[in-house]
Formats: sequence, structure tokens, C-alpha cells
Amino acid sequence: MPASRPRNLALAYVRSVVRRARHAARGLATLDSGRKDRALLQMAQALHQAVPELMSENRKDVQAGQAAGLPAALLDRLTLNEKRIAAMASGLEQIAALPDPVGRVLDGWSRPNGLQIQQVRVPIGVIAIVYESRPNVTADAAGLCLKSGNASILRGGKEALRSNLAIHGLLARCLKECGLSPHAIQMIDRTDRSVVKHLARSDGWVNLIIPRGGEGLIRAVAEEATVPVMKHYKGVCHVYVDRDADLDMARSITVNAKVQRPGVCNAAECLLVHRDVARAFLPSAAAELRAAHVELRACPETRCIVRGLIPAQASDWGREFLDLILAVRVVHSLQEAIDFINTYGSGHSDAIVTRNLTAAAEFTRQVDSAAVFVNASTRFTDGYEFGMGAEIGISTDRLHARGPVGLRELTTYKYIVHGTGQIRQ
Amino acid sequence: MPASRPRNLALAYVRSVVRRARHAARGLATLDSGRKDRALLQMAQALHQAVPELMSENRKDVQAGQAAGLPAALLDRLTLNEKRIAAMASGLEQIAALPDPVGRVLDGWSRPNGLQIQQVRVPIGVIAIVYESRPNVTADAAGLCLKSGNASILRGGKEALRSNLAIHGLLARCLKECGLSPHAIQMIDRTDRSVVKHLARSDGWVNLIIPRGGEGLIRAVAEEATVPVMKHYKGVCHVYVDRDADLDMARSITVNAKVQRPGVCNAAECLLVHRDVARAFLPSAAAELRAAHVELRACPETRCIVRGLIPAQASDWGREFLDLILAVRVVHSLQEAIDFINTYGSGHSDAIVTRNLTAAAEFTRQVDSAAVFVNASTRFTDGYEFGMGAEIGISTDRLHARGPVGLRELTTYKYIVHGTGQIRQ
Repeated sequence: MPASRPRNLALAYVRSVVRRARHAARGLATLDSGRKDRALLQMAQALHQAVPELMSENRKDVQAGQAAGLPAALLDRLTLNEKRIAAMASGLEQIAALPDPVGRVLDGWSRPNGLQIQQVRVPIGVIAIVYESRPNVTADAAGLCLKSGNASILRGGKEALRSNLAIHGLLARCLKECGLSPHAIQMIDRTDRSVVKHLARSDGWVNLIIPRGGEGLIRAVAEEATVPVMKHYKGVCHVYVDRDADLDMARSITVNAKVQRPGVCNAAECLLVHRDVARAFLPSAAAELRAAHVELRACPETRCIVRGLIPAQASDWGREFLDLILAVRVVHSLQEAIDFINTYGSGHSDAIVTRNLTAAAEFTRQVDSAAVFVNASTRFTDGYEFGMGAEIGISTDRLHARGPVGLRELTTYKYIVHGTGQIRQ
Repeated sequence: MPASRPRNLALAYVRSVVRRARHAARGLATLDSGRKDRALLQMAQALHQAVPELMSENRKDVQAGQAAGLPAALLDRLTLNEKRIAAMASGLEQIAALPDPVGRVLDGWSRPNGLQIQQVRVPIGVIAIVYESRPNVTADAAGLCLKSGNASILRGGKEALRSNLAIHGLLARCLKECGLSPHAIQMIDRTDRSVVKHLARSDGWVNLIIPRGGEGLIRAVAEEATVPVMKHYKGVCHVYVDRDADLDMARSITVNAKVQRPGVCNAAECLLVHRDVARAFLPSAAAELRAAHVELRACPETRCIVRGLIPAQASDWGREFLDLILAVRVVHSLQEAIDFINTYGSGHSDAIVTRNLTAAAEFTRQVDSAAVFVNASTRFTDGYEFGMGAEIGISTDRLHARGPVGLRELTTYKYIVHGTGQIRQ
């Protein structure tokens, strides 16, 4: 927190928000699971019942967005319909059904002097989440924070403000009806950019800030923050087809990793193929990928095997296309594949396809990514697919949480030590 | 990492250091425990053998410090003698004897589609440690990082530079002799302040920066950093004597928590006493504390019970004295004590003395500190006392590591997922 006298309105506003959040966080930290779950279920019900009013507020955002010339993709992400509102409600129901991470004893041991030490999960405290256009993040993020015992401060995109305020209004009403502090979930209703800066510098009040959105947003928050930041950077994911791969499996995994949903961070951006199987693998794989409208940008060796491919530029290695584009490269050894991934990858998700135990072991040992797959698609890096339930994103940081960030990753721990009068000698 | 063209010498220097560190980190990440332990033991031996040359280099630092008028306490911390060098060596031997955290499977489960997921400990990568005058930190920090598979970049205080370089020279020689990269442990030999700034902004190269020292150093690093920071702020620790306390135990714990080593972060700074036992407890406790030369700064109620105490000022609550000074306050309930600690404490270590199960449970549930003690001295918050072995400090952060930071806390994890060709639907 900066010096004690607010220099401007945005700072004064952020101060009052973070103070209320900190106060609410104290109450949340010791709240029974049952009361949190009842509030979540009531919120789900309120969302179901409020479809007309949410859609009416959302329509104003969409119309303003159209008038401002927002691109079609953004307008689509901004739009709420009955199905999307039902999905938000069902998300909250799913969060209610997940086990509460708070209070879980992670470890415990006795010391020679008789001290009994327990390491117990507790909430992080106050979490600020800064996100872009999709209004469903409002309910998801608030629900995950509530269940994990954290107070949340939400700052959505200004183009979704009316929708977000309408959703937040429902959530806050439910908190009150359940006898909880409405400040447990707060929505920032100022659109000035400096609010994010003040939030990111509210150390001692805000315990974590999570920017969700484009790289520009994340970098700006990380640059300004004195509060810890949990980053969700890009995913430059690789599929490596080993010399000992089952080539049918390799084709199926490659196509799935690229095509099933190309615009997300766990989609593959680069295919590496061992030269010993390049001639056997690449023609059929390229045909199937091209049939799925994938543009291949290939190294010279690949282009000798499959004619008519676009030459890869140096900038295509390590690039996140987020589109139906795949870089393709022949490598001369497993080690070359590993080194390439550790150099050009983003440490997100990388896969090997092989039947060879040694190759699988070396790949998983050496590839330094949040998720390393053997004979499976990179698309599985996901809270739901991992069985963790809802997630707030995929962390590309190494500290605190790596990979999918679910309820467990939104907690910390404390030590509880029981003695019988021990003093230190 | 800032833009690609170095603007100055300090930046160019830091870039070459962090690149070498990153390269070394790759090799360290997959190194067998046996090889790490052999290097640590060899370093211990080298320290034992180099006592005369280390003391001679250290003498130059001490003489320069005397000439520059360093205070006696700082000169003492700066000074190496045979006993302190032996302690450094024995620290490395102890680290070698600890279990290697890397490679440990933290969790594992199967998914309905047959995917087998394992969460496995891996090193963080490159860790920068910025510290002040004590040269023994050089060996401790390097040893902990090496054992946990991390490359370390060490930046000690300029007053200890010759000593640090001499110690580092030995460590690097041992790395080489053991066939490891000498860049696994690097010592910054430039004393300009901007080096720390560039280190703290080397994201993508440095994965964690740990400032160890005064609050000014820590705040400066946190302010500039884009790299995650692990902070070791102050400890404002409380002992609360409950209505149902064993008063002899309460006296013994209070005196120990304050007097046994008053200058450290887990020493008590404030005594809270329930009013129902204040008359029975305070006179004898005050007598014993005063006999140990503790200055008591007391609330009005305490001063009615024990005559002649200094009145506490508002600024004495929540203050880290790091000295033989203790604030004393009578509270009217357990809840008042808990709220006081959550308001004025620093979330480090706080203790209750009680025979009452409910009081103990409420205290441990509600007090939001890294370590919460029942019937034991706050002085036990320590890696060795917790049985974790050597520690690099006590984190007052809530993310990643809270409380003592040992080998385990210097690691992160990755997911290794084995499939049989699974693709996402």
C-alpha cells in the first residue's frame, strides 16, 4: 500500500475496496464448507432465475460494442445467451460439489522434544483477478475464490461492465442472504486503467493478483506489481514423434493436438519428427492435417519429403500461432528434440509419441514443462481433464502453482505446533 | 529480460551471468543425488583445508570495514574465524545428508480415460540470492540451491566481497573437480547497485530472487522486481497467556520467547495476558523478565498491577524491537487476543499458553500466522527445529513457501502424464 494519504480518486477507491476485502477475508478463512457450498448453490439458482435481466444488461454491452466496432470474435465472447448463463450456473454447482481444500492436513510429524507439527491448508487471503471480455469469468472466478476461502476483487473488461455488474449484483445478494459479507466478492466499477496499477501495488492488502487475458495485459500487471502475480502466458506446445512411435497413434495425437481447438494454450504449435520415421510418417500426417485445413510451415528436410509446403521462417519456431498453422521439423535424435523443446517451447505442455521405455523416460525427465505427455495429446492440460475440477487458468509460472490452477492452488498453508511447555535451549 | 541491446555494462554483465546460470540449471535439474552430495562433501573438505587463506582474505574485509567505521555488530557478523569456517563446512555436510527433494512423486492418480497423472518435484531453475554482510550465507545458500538442483547467483554485501569471492572460488573449484558446471554457483563481483535491479528484472532467466537482509533491501528488490520475490520480512511475534494457562509454563515460555535470542525474527515482541489471570501472572513474570534486563512497555491495566513500568505508546503495538524490550497488554477475552494478533502481528509466529482445548482450537484456527504455537515458544519457527534441516530463511510471504524455507521449498513440480494414445474429444 502506498503512503497514507490518497493522492487521487482511483487510489482512494482501491483503498476502500481492498480494506473491505481484507476484512471479509478474515471471516471467510474460518467458514465451514457447508455454508460456502450453500452460498454457491444459491448463486447458481439466482443465475438461472435471472436469465432475462442478465441478457438485457448484456445486450447493452453488445450494442455498445457493435457501435464501437469491436471485432466479431470479441463480440461473440462478450455475448451471453441462455445456454452460457446455464453453463455459468452449472460451473458454480460443480465448484460446490468439489472437496474443500481448506483445513486439509498436508503433513504432520513429531520432533524429538515432543513438539507436534502439522502443516494445514489455509486460504491465500485476498485475490484480485483482472480479466478481459468474457463475462462468465466473473462467476467462475468468484466461485473458485469463495470455495477456497478467499475474498475476491474482480476487474473485468470495460466492454463487459454492465454484464459483469449484473452478475456480481446477483452474487453479492446471495452472499447477504446466506449471512456472509457481501465484500467477500467485490467488482470494480471504475474503468480507469490506474485502478489496476493501484491493486497490483496494494501489498499487505491484496495477497495475489491474477491477470487473465492477452500477453500485453499480463506484462503490464507484472511490470507494475509489488503484489505476487500468477501469470498465464502463452503455450508453445510440441508433439515429438519418436523413432519408435506407433505412427497411427502419432498421427491421431498430432491432429488432435493441433485441430481439436487451435485457439487455446494447450494446442500444439510445432511437430518434431525423428528422421528415421520421417518418410513413413510425414506424407500421411501432412495429408490428414491439410485435409483439416492446417497450414504446415516446414523445415527443408520435411519439404523434401512432402512437396508443396511453405518454408518455415526462423520466427516460426517457438511461435504461438493460436490458429490452424503448424510448424514441422525433422530432428536427428531424441536429444535434439528435447533440446529444441527446452529452447523454443514455453514450458507449458509437450508430448512424445513412442513405444520405447528409455525414450519416454528421457523425455519426461529432461523436458522442463508444466505437463509432459507420453502417448497422449497436449490438449489434456486442463483442470477438468486432470480431474481437479474447475480451474482459474493454466499457470506458466514456476512458483506456487504450475499448470492447471484449481482450488488447491488457490490456497497456502500454515504450521500448527502443539507443545507441552517446550522452550528453546 | 529487457530489450535486446545492453544499454550499459552492468546490464551486459548480468546478462552473461544469467545466461550461464540458465545453461547450468538445465544440467543440474537431472543430476543424480549422489553427484550433488559428493560435490557438497568435497566443498566442506575444501573449506576445512582453506582456513588460513579464507581468514587472510576476510581480514582485508574486516580491516576495510574498520577503516570505513562499520559498527561493531556488523564487524562481528563480517568476521570469519576457524570455528565459523568449520560451521560452514558442517552446514554443507548436513545438506549433503538431507534427502534430495527432486524427483519425489507428490501425488498421482488415474483418469477415467486411462491417463495416468503424476505430480513430481523438480528444481525451480535459477535462483538469485541478495544478502548482506555475513559471508557464511555464501556457502549455505549455494549448498541449499545445489542440493535442490538449482543454479544460484549470489550477490553479497560489498563489505564482504573479498571473503565471499574466496569462499566462492573454493566452491566453484570443487564443482569443476566433480565434473559439474562451475556456473552452477556464480558470485557477482560487481558492487554497483544496478546489478541487483537487472537481476530482479531478468524474467525468463532468473526464476526467483531471495533478498536476505534489512527491510530496506527487501522493499527495494520487491519494488523493482518482475521476477518472483521470496520475502523475509519482520517478525512481530506474540505470546498470549490465556485465562486457563499453566502460569509457570506461561512464564517460562514468555521469558524464552523474548530473552533466549532477542535479535531474531521469531523472538516475541508482545505479551498479551487475559485479565482473569493478570494479577496472578504479571507480577512474577515481570520480575523474571526484568531480572533478565527486559524493558517492559505496558498498557494502563498492566501498570496498575505492576508498578513502575514504562507506558506503551501506540507505536509499540506491532513493533519489531529486536531487542530486550517487550510490549505488554491485558486483554479481556480470547477473541480480543486473536483479533489483536491478526491486526498488529506480522503473520510470522504467535503462541497461546492454555490448558483449555476450545481456546487452543480457536486460537490455531483463527490466528493467521505462518506458525501458530500451543504451549511452546515462538522461537521454534526454524528449519532445524522443525526437522527440515538447513533453511535459507523464514518466508513471510503467503505464496509458494510460508515459514521456514528449506530444500523442499526451493523446488516446484511438473506433471508427467502417461497415456496409450488418448486424444481429447
